Amino acid sequence: MTVRKRLREIAEHVGGTIVGDADVFVCNVRGIDEADEGDLTFLANPKYKDRLEETRASAILVSPGMTSPGKNLIVTNDPYRAMAMSLGLLYPEEASPPGISGEAFIESDAEIGEGATLYPGVYIGRRARIERSVVLYPGVFVGDDAIVGENSTLYPNVVVYKGCRIGKRVILHAGVVVGADGFGFANPGRDNRKVPQVGIVQIDDDVEVGANTTIDRGTLGKTWIQRGVKIDNLVQIAHNVVIGEKSIIVAQVGIAGSTKLGQSVILGGQVGVAGHITIGDNVMVGGQSGVHENISPNQTVSGTPHMRHLAWLRVQACKPHLPEMRKTVNSLLKRIEQLEESVRD
Amino acid sequence: MTVRKRLREIAEHVGGTIVGDADVFVCNVRGIDEADEGDLTFLANPKYKDRLEETRASAILVSPGMTSPGKNLIVTNDPYRAMAMSLGLLYPEEASPPGISGEAFIESDAEIGEGATLYPGVYIGRRARIERSVVLYPGVFVGDDAIVGENSTLYPNVVVYKGCRIGKRVILHAGVVVGADGFGFANPGRDNRKVPQVGIVQIDDDVEVGANTTIDRGTLGKTWIQRGVKIDNLVQIAHNVVIGEKSIIVAQVGIAGSTKLGQSVILGGQVGVAGHITIGDNVMVGGQSGVHENISPNQTVSGTPHMRHLAWLRVQACKPHLPEMRKTVNSLLKRIEQLEESVRD
Amino acid sequence: MTVRKRLREIAEHVGGTIVGDADVFVCNVRGIDEADEGDLTFLANPKYKDRLEETRASAILVSPGMTSPGKNLIVTNDPYRAMAMSLGLLYPEEASPPGISGEAFIESDAEIGEGATLYPGVYIGRRARIERSVVLYPGVFVGDDAIVGENSTLYPNVVVYKGCRIGKRVILHAGVVVGADGFGFANPGRDNRKVPQVGIVQIDDDVEVGANTTIDRGTLGKTWIQRGVKIDNLVQIAHNVVIGEKSIIVAQVGIAGSTKLGQSVILGGQVGVAGHITIGDNVMVGGQSGVHENISPNQTVSGTPHMRHLAWLRVQACKPHLPEMRKTVNSLLKRIEQLEESVRD
Repeated sequence: MTVRKRLREIAEHVGGTIVGDADVFVCNVRGIDEADEGDLTFLANPKYKDRLEETRASAILVSPGMTSPGKNLIVTNDPYRAMAMSLGLLYPEEASPPGISGEAFIESDAEIGEGATLYPGVYIGRRARIERSVVLYPGVFVGDDAIVGENSTLYPNVVVYKGCRIGKRVILHAGVVVGADGFGFANPGRDNRKVPQVGIVQIDDDVEVGANTTIDRGTLGKTWIQRGVKIDNLVQIAHNVVIGEKSIIVAQVGIAGSTKLGQSVILGGQVGVAGHITIGDNVMVGGQSGVHENISPNQTVSGTPHMRHLAWLRVQACKPHLPEMRKTVNSLLKRIEQLEESVRD
Repeated sequence: MTVRKRLREIAEHVGGTIVGDADVFVCNVRGIDEADEGDLTFLANPKYKDRLEETRASAILVSPGMTSPGKNLIVTNDPYRAMAMSLGLLYPEEASPPGISGEAFIESDAEIGEGATLYPGVYIGRRARIERSVVLYPGVFVGDDAIVGENSTLYPNVVVYKGCRIGKRVILHAGVVVGADGFGFANPGRDNRKVPQVGIVQIDDDVEVGANTTIDRGTLGKTWIQRGVKIDNLVQIAHNVVIGEKSIIVAQVGIAGSTKLGQSVILGGQVGVAGHITIGDNVMVGGQSGVHENISPNQTVSGTPHMRHLAWLRVQACKPHLPEMRKTVNSLLKRIEQLEESVRD
Repeated sequence: MTVRKRLREIAEHVGGTIVGDADVFVCNVRGIDEADEGDLTFLANPKYKDRLEETRASAILVSPGMTSPGKNLIVTNDPYRAMAMSLGLLYPEEASPPGISGEAFIESDAEIGEGATLYPGVYIGRRARIERSVVLYPGVFVGDDAIVGENSTLYPNVVVYKGCRIGKRVILHAGVVVGADGFGFANPGRDNRKVPQVGIVQIDDDVEVGANTTIDRGTLGKTWIQRGVKIDNLVQIAHNVVIGEKSIIVAQVGIAGSTKLGQSVILGGQVGVAGHITIGDNVMVGGQSGVHENISPNQTVSGTPHMRHLAWLRVQACKPHLPEMRKTVNSLLKRIEQLEESVRD
């Protein structure tokens, strides 16, 4: 399902310079070790320069300054990014046949844009709006009054509760749940009286959300995923959280209610963030950390409690020595007592 | 989709006393900073008393003793709870049109109660029983011989495996899986022989379960979620776990097989609980903790290994100082050696 | 829904020896405390030998050397395994009526094997292949060009993206997502340019995957779950991960991109594993650990950073003593200063 392209076309597409034969054909991208004739590969890390000589790939995307006589190279400032662009060229998405399946179920007053694809088993609620060129795979549920913006793709069994708003060019992977009730109960553990969750979720343009991730609706107002945010699988975003533009949330992160993330924040896998705190722009948080307090912008932190990443590395390095330290401290205590005695005498 | 109510009606509904104009209309609830004319708001925390003067809300739910001349107040012992009750009044659920979609699939010998709503794409297994006024959204699967009690709501794509029993007024959010096989294999890592999981899941009345949470069936007997329990999103409950009445389980918690929780237990987000242990009534466990041993009732614990919460806070406070402690201990060691020498001399 | 069997038949099936009445009937398996007349039970742990006398079960699976006059015993080397085998005999799966529902949706050029069961609401993509005796529950999605091997069972709402390959006798529980895009973005936090994910997922024979687990497709090449692997609920497996034969992955584990696990690896619940590392055969990792570096074969490790399990236990034992240690170190510092002074004098 790939297509064949001349190196010339690829270089043009990625904005690179060819060293070697511009007319050679490639039809596949593979890692530098697996690559064979007909494959394009890439070398992002100069550390692995040696492999350049050994690869059997027909062409290699490399950084400026790398050379390998007899090889066909495309020189570009960011070979990894160029690889991503080449993939788009060589593996064009097989377009879904547009059209609305007779086995999709559309409630009255719903609005379906031109060129939208609704597979069998899709459900669209009352007054919902599906904009043009949207693709909804089987089992997708779009609740009453919800909106799905143009060119967005919702993979199978995605659920968008009533009133939620999905922007343009958004990708929601299979099993994503947008807009389930926030976890709000008055007198928790005693009364457990449900606080009705009457807010919504708003997801802005160019967001991608991984499989089985859940994003709760606001208690009041909205939970807000801003433009260009990328969220991995099995992430939990609680009610009224705001995630700033271009932030990256790795798998299995949990963010508690009403917390605000700035722009370009990166949270590593399995991080937990407490509720009602603020994380500044460009903050990076290492995997499995627990964040309980505000973090000012441009910090790189790790651990529980979180601390600067370098300080955390030093703490981590101490941990295995704790038993030995404890023993030493106890022996020091005894030796000091003896010393004190002998000095007293 | 909200309705307009006089302050008088709201005060009656929540059991509060009006100070100000009982005839003013409100039609919305908003946070104290966002609220505007026509909005009801609330002030749960006396710390933010100043905002009372500044808010543009038409009325405010407050605790006894709070005053603000010229404002319309409803005085009540628990403003947050009163807010929850007001939400129920101002945002009535748009009732699903009752009835059984022609596109729902119902196997023979299944029983559907009066006033139940079955959306398109629902599947009901053989001999299953759906009681009256149940709402099953699209894509819900109810297996053979399973029961869903009256007035329960199962959001899209909820899966209830065969034989499981769901109580009355239960809410299962989208993607919840009840009754998948427990993770039981004899000789793990070697033989991996599957232990057939022949038990069930029983969920009692008034339970709510968050999106994409999974509750495994018992190996033998049952996994049991007792009355009034509230479980957040992406939680894992293993085979034969028992969760006592009114307990609160926050997002991404994992509870291993055969563990028993008492009543009114609260587990913070991302907590892990080992198998075959017992947690007493009213225990609270801080987020991300790891619980490996029984906990007696009425404890508040945190950390891995878990310890009393206050002890844990002190341990947490020490962690960043570990590298410095280690250095100090090493230098003390040298200084003591020198001292011992000079004293010996 | 169980059947009645004579003890004789069970002993033959599990390969055990009867002590007592070979003709007694059992029709149920229950735990030793709950068991009553007509029940088979088992005693895996000799520690609980006393219960043998007290149980009201009609028969008990025991290890060699255990006796209890007047009781009907089946003696076998592995009573737990024998219990698993007995369950298979006493609780035969009610076979799904084979056949393809008229309400399943099958695209052109898809291939459906003999004896396959397709429930209503199943979707099969173009050129997909469903082999013989496969069972696909309602809401299952199998994408274009994907393969599901013979005798596999996909529970409700499982999603298999295009091109992925599922082996024989595989069980995927409800809500599993196989083949969603890996989390690959060039210039994360800045550009967030999507790296097209053109690889696949390959799941080999006899694998079982728990509810709502997600396994991402390879960026290039494949993500590979090898023969006999068992994965629990809500696990995240990233792009290009390889999991070796017979490994066991407990609930809520996350494994980052391109990491390779050997054979018979066991990861405890909520473990996080960094990307691009290698874990050797037979490694066991304790629950909630964070693994950031390669682990050589046959290690048992725990903690973050991970260390040998016994070393970790010692570190854990020190943690509660940290505040006291810190105090001691500070007091030692003062006492040494005084000593140094008095010695200097």
